[in-house]
Amino acid sequence: MGDVCVLGLGLIGGSVLRAVSAAGWTAWAATASDDDAAAASAAGFTVLPIDDALRRASDTGAVVVVAVSLDAINSVLDEVGRLAPACVVTDVGGIKQPIAEHVAASPTSLRYVGGHPMAGKAESGWPAGSATLFDRAAWAVCVEPDTDRSAWAEVANLALATGAEVVPVTARRHDDAVARISHLPHLLAAVLASAGAQGGPLGLSLAAGSFTDGTRVAGSDPNLVRAMTEGNRSSLLPALDGALGTLGAARGSLASTGSLAATINAGHAARDALQRLGSAPRVDVRIDLSASDSVDALLGLGERGGRITAIADGVATGYVPDDDA
Amino acid sequence: MGDVCVLGLGLIGGSVLRAVSAAGWTAWAATASDDDAAAASAAGFTVLPIDDALRRASDTGAVVVVAVSLDAINSVLDEVGRLAPACVVTDVGGIKQPIAEHVAASPTSLRYVGGHPMAGKAESGWPAGSATLFDRAAWAVCVEPDTDRSAWAEVANLALATGAEVVPVTARRHDDAVARISHLPHLLAAVLASAGAQGGPLGLSLAAGSFTDGTRVAGSDPNLVRAMTEGNRSSLLPALDGALGTLGAARGSLASTGSLAATINAGHAARDALQRLGSAPRVDVRIDLSASDSVDALLGLGERGGRITAIADGVATGYVPDDDA
Repeated sequence: MGDVCVLGLGLIGGSVLRAVSAAGWTAWAATASDDDAAAASAAGFTVLPIDDALRRASDTGAVVVVAVSLDAINSVLDEVGRLAPACVVTDVGGIKQPIAEHVAASPTSLRYVGGHPMAGKAESGWPAGSATLFDRAAWAVCVEPDTDRSAWAEVANLALATGAEVVPVTARRHDDAVARISHLPHLLAAVLASAGAQGGPLGLSLAAGSFTDGTRVAGSDPNLVRAMTEGNRSSLLPALDGALGTLGAARGSLASTGSLAATINAGHAARDALQRLGSAPRVDVRIDLSASDSVDALLGLGERGGRITAIADGVATGYVPDDDA
Repeated sequence: MGDVCVLGLGLIGGSVLRAVSAAGWTAWAATASDDDAAAASAAGFTVLPIDDALRRASDTGAVVVVAVSLDAINSVLDEVGRLAPACVVTDVGGIKQPIAEHVAASPTSLRYVGGHPMAGKAESGWPAGSATLFDRAAWAVCVEPDTDRSAWAEVANLALATGAEVVPVTARRHDDAVARISHLPHLLAAVLASAGAQGGPLGLSLAAGSFTDGTRVAGSDPNLVRAMTEGNRSSLLPALDGALGTLGAARGSLASTGSLAATINAGHAARDALQRLGSAPRVDVRIDLSASDSVDALLGLGERGGRITAIADGVATGYVPDDDA
C-alpha cells in the first residue's frame, strides 16, 4: 500500500480513487470538473486544488495518476513535472506512443510510466465509476528497454491495487494492439449503425441481438472516440486496411462464387481463440525485476497473453495461458 | 387459442412449442433429431412421427410451423403440401423471398405465410430454448397484395401467442432489412474477429467490451451463418457495398485529413435513432383486416417501425412510434 494522487475524476479516475481507497491506500484527487469534485467530496473523498494535490504528492512520494482526457494529458504531465518532479507518474490514456514521445521531448525529466486500463463503458463522469470497474481487467503498463524498473513496479502495483491484472507491453505494441481490439471495433460499430439506419424504421424495428451488440459502442461520446482513433492513425491505418481487404474479399467471393465460407470460418476460429485464451490452463511465471533480462521477460509474458498478478520484494508473479493444453 | 403443429425442435421450434403451450394452445411436434425428441418428450410435450403430426394437423385444422434449418424448409413445406394441404403453414427461416418463390412454383397449392421471429442466441438445439424467448421480440409475418388475409391472421395470432409483436412486411423488404441488421452484422463480426486475432495473444489479452461485443455473433454456428448470408446474396451485396464504401471513405479521410468525424458522428446519430425508436411515444393503430386497403395499411405500419400487438374479430391493433415526439 502507499499514497496515490489522482488527477481527473471521470469514469476511470473516479474508479481508481474508489478502488485504491477500498484497498487501503491513502488517496486524494484533483479535478477541473466542479460537478465531479462536489460528488467525490460528498462521497467522503479528499479533493484538493491541483497545486495542493501535487505538492502533497511531492511531500509524500505518492504515485500520480493522470486520468484526464487524451487531449489534456500532455499539459497535465507538464504540470506534474513542475510541481512534483520526483514522483512516479502514470496516465490512463488509450494511446501510448504519442504521450511517450511528448515526455521524452520534455525539457524537465519525469519519472513517467504509461498505463492503460482496458475497462470502460459508454457512460462517463464520476457517477459512472465504481470500485470494482477494474476487477480482473487487463491494465497495460508500458515497459521499454530503458524503463526505470522501480518506477514500473510502483505503477504496476497501483494497477494491481485496483483489482486489475497487469499486461507489460511497449508503447508501440500497445498502440498496434488497441488499433485492432478497440479502435477498429469503434469504427466498424459506426459503419454498421449507419448501414442499419439506412434501412429505415422497419430495419431498426426488426433489429435484434447481432445489430444491438454490434453497434453498442457507436453510442459512446463521439469526441472521445475521435480522440483515440484519430490519435492512433499510424497503427489504425494498417488495421483498417486489413479489415477492408477481408471485407472486400468477402464481397468478391459472395458476388462471384456465392460463398462466404472463408470469411465466416476464419471469424469463427478467431472468436474461438479469444474464448480459449480466457479459459486456458495457466502456467505460473516468476520474474525477478532486478535481473538484467527482466524487461525481455515481462514483454515476452505480455506477448504470450500473460498477465502479472502480484509484485512483492522486487519479484513479479503472474501467469501465461498454456497454448498447448 | 388454437392448435399448433411444430416441425423441428431446435432453439426456435422448441421455444415456439413451449411458448404456445404456456399460452394454453394445444400443441404437438415432430423432429428429425432423436435427442431433441427425447428431451421434449421428457419435458412432457407431445412428439409424434412427422406423418402422424401432419395428419393430426390436417384433422384439427392446426397451424403448422416449419422450424427446421434454412436448407430443409422447402422439402418440409412440400411434405406439408402432401399431408396437410388445407392447413395454414408458416416457417421461421431467416430469408423469405426464396421460400416464397419455391411455394409459388410448387405444383400443389399451400396456404403459406412466411414468418421470421427476430430472436436468437449463439446456442442452438432444444436445451437452448425457452417459453419467454419471444417476449416483446419482433416477429416478421410476410404480407403481399395477394396474401390470404385469414391465413395471415392465423399466423400472426400464432406469433402473438408466443409473446412476440408482429411486423407486417413483404418478403423482399424483409430480406433487404435483415441484410442490414442481421447478415451484415454477422459478416462484420467475422472480419473484426479475424483482425483482432491477427494481433496475437497480446491483443486478445487486452480485448475488452468493444471487441467482445463486436465479435459475439462470430461465435454462432458457421453453417447457419453461411446459409442465411449466402442465401440472401441479392440483398446482402448492396448492403455490403454500402458498408465497404463507408469504411473506405473513413480510411481515405483518416489517411488524408486525419479526421474520422463524418464516420463517427454518423454512427452515433444512427445508434441514437435506434435508441429513440425503442423509447418513442406510441400512436395506437387499428386495422380492419377485411378492408380493401388492409394490406397497404399493414405494410405502412411496418415501414414506420410499427407493430401489431393483438388481433380480435378480424381487427388488428398495434402501434407506430411517434416520429415527431
